Amino acid sequence: MESTQGDTRRIALDAMGGDLGSAEVVSALRLALDEFPDLCPVTILGDEAELGPLLDQAKLSAHPKVTLHHTAEVITMGDEVMTAIKRKRDSSMLKAIELVKEGAARAVVSTGNTKILVSAGTLKLRTLAGIERPALAPVIPREGGHFILIDAGANPEAKSMHLVHNAILGSHYARMELGIEKPRVGLLTIGTEEGKGNSLINDTHEHLKALGDLVHYVGPVEGFQVFFDHVDVIVCDGFTGNICLKSWESLSKFFRNELKAQMLSSPLRRLGGMMARGAFTGLRHRIQPERYGGAPLLGLRGTVLKAHGSANRYALMNALGDASEFIRVDRTSRIEADIDRANKILRPEPVDVSEL
Amino acid sequence: MESTQGDTRRIALDAMGGDLGSAEVVSALRLALDEFPDLCPVTILGDEAELGPLLDQAKLSAHPKVTLHHTAEVITMGDEVMTAIKRKRDSSMLKAIELVKEGAARAVVSTGNTKILVSAGTLKLRTLAGIERPALAPVIPREGGHFILIDAGANPEAKSMHLVHNAILGSHYARMELGIEKPRVGLLTIGTEEGKGNSLINDTHEHLKALGDLVHYVGPVEGFQVFFDHVDVIVCDGFTGNICLKSWESLSKFFRNELKAQMLSSPLRRLGGMMARGAFTGLRHRIQPERYGGAPLLGLRGTVLKAHGSANRYALMNALGDASEFIRVDRTSRIEADIDRANKILRPEPVDVSEL
Repeated sequence: MESTQGDTRRIALDAMGGDLGSAEVVSALRLALDEFPDLCPVTILGDEAELGPLLDQAKLSAHPKVTLHHTAEVITMGDEVMTAIKRKRDSSMLKAIELVKEGAARAVVSTGNTKILVSAGTLKLRTLAGIERPALAPVIPREGGHFILIDAGANPEAKSMHLVHNAILGSHYARMELGIEKPRVGLLTIGTEEGKGNSLINDTHEHLKALGDLVHYVGPVEGFQVFFDHVDVIVCDGFTGNICLKSWESLSKFFRNELKAQMLSSPLRRLGGMMARGAFTGLRHRIQPERYGGAPLLGLRGTVLKAHGSANRYALMNALGDASEFIRVDRTSRIEADIDRANKILRPEPVDVSEL
Repeated sequence: MESTQGDTRRIALDAMGGDLGSAEVVSALRLALDEFPDLCPVTILGDEAELGPLLDQAKLSAHPKVTLHHTAEVITMGDEVMTAIKRKRDSSMLKAIELVKEGAARAVVSTGNTKILVSAGTLKLRTLAGIERPALAPVIPREGGHFILIDAGANPEAKSMHLVHNAILGSHYARMELGIEKPRVGLLTIGTEEGKGNSLINDTHEHLKALGDLVHYVGPVEGFQVFFDHVDVIVCDGFTGNICLKSWESLSKFFRNELKAQMLSSPLRRLGGMMARGAFTGLRHRIQPERYGGAPLLGLRGTVLKAHGSANRYALMNALGDASEFIRVDRTSRIEADIDRANKILRPEPVDVSEL
């Protein structure tokens, strides 16, 4: 069952390292195969002794689209980045990336340690032509829809050109994932007058304006606009983006706990809460959507989808669907063409004097 | 009624520029005088033609603690920072700061334009000895209490020493406002292992560890920990802090709107919602507290309290109470002593060779 030959339009699914364990990952695979008839074939990586029985129960052992790839090691949340990448070559996460590097697969889906996934993905899969750093791009719910936050933590010390590339990568992802042909791109900052913010923002603002129709840049976006219908792609450095994303999750959790405590604090409230239960379920689905199961690490030769550590089977099912979509609708050449145009506009090549 | 002589332990209240108008400010003053018997005397600044009648209605015209100071101009949200500071000298906000500079008052309370308040406060009132930049420090609700975020936007291009000073300023404010003798201080970043984050964070982390008992530094804090009971003071640069604060407000508003829409989407939910109404009120008070009516601009010679533009009478009442507290419990000398110790530890003075 080790074979990953033949069709290379294949997803490498890291079954280990998620909070809910590999059984949840196998359930997700079962759901994805039923939900998406044209799902790309999947190589599921992890401990054979653990996954074998689970695949049997799920009637997937003999499934034509499912291949089991045994790996002996597991990367944990506690692992140090470089140590894990050097020492745990036979882990499900690193082998999954390896399969993409070898061309035996085109996309990785993993719930594992973000820092290690980002570092290993960047080291093993090269970046696209003209791009220096990849960016993590989660889809986040807001009034009337969703927006893409890029970068959510892959590149904490971003340079202006990195943010420009994020704007291009985010725009292409918005076209594919949100189905918006001309996504509005905003630059996250603290003052919407020109010249406000910091030097990185000011430089990037000028660069984005210089791109013309390459990116539909609508200008700076302030924090108070984020969750309302202003832009479809929010560009920021990985430091700001990661703190925002994580603190938004923290705040949502705090809300839910407080609201729950308030609803349970009297019999009347409890009864009212039961009658209105549907509203809370509805809200939960808006605030914590499983619809976008994974955040892609954009800018690499190959797709890497990072699912939340606590992603359940539905989130992972959708991550698998997205991975298939990434493989099917390969935008690489269009992205590289846009990046090349942007780099030429912002870093014009020196004139060759011999040609004068 | 122009006199601001006599007791200089006085609050300068900017009555103009708030979203709810000067009537709300006068109501806040009435409430504060009733709520806090030992409230410091207040000079209310704004258009006499507008404020005079409002003070009459509120029976405050002849109040021994209330002085009206007429100003002809108003600073609006649209004003450019330096233009306003140069041209609108006779505005309620700038005059209020002027009164503190002259020694006719010790604290400013304003709902006006944050950027202008921060810039004017910094330019007109000098910073405390050893401090280069002031910091904005709102109090924010979290699981089991509140935390102080410093800096929320005063200093978007912070250096490591600025963050160290924020840690000291925030600790003193936590002692006064939250009543915590040994507040836990955390450094907001993206990875809790040492060496993660960016160079500013890494330098600051080493500096804070070097301070010994000067600051109760418990280490880096990640976004996911922010709204849970980990630290009492969260230190960050003004760029990150302002984006966080504003986006948290945006998310709270989005959350409330979504929940409301969900609750109204069926008769059963509507009825349940009415029965549980108390829970939503309770939640609103936790999430959008009026208890901490204003965010102080710390590090200046004189108190500047920035109330939210949409602050209502209760928020402003508490801002006035806080301003009184700042004047009564003046921690300036203790803060300057701590700053001096920190600067000596981190920037040891060169040895005077002549003394060897």
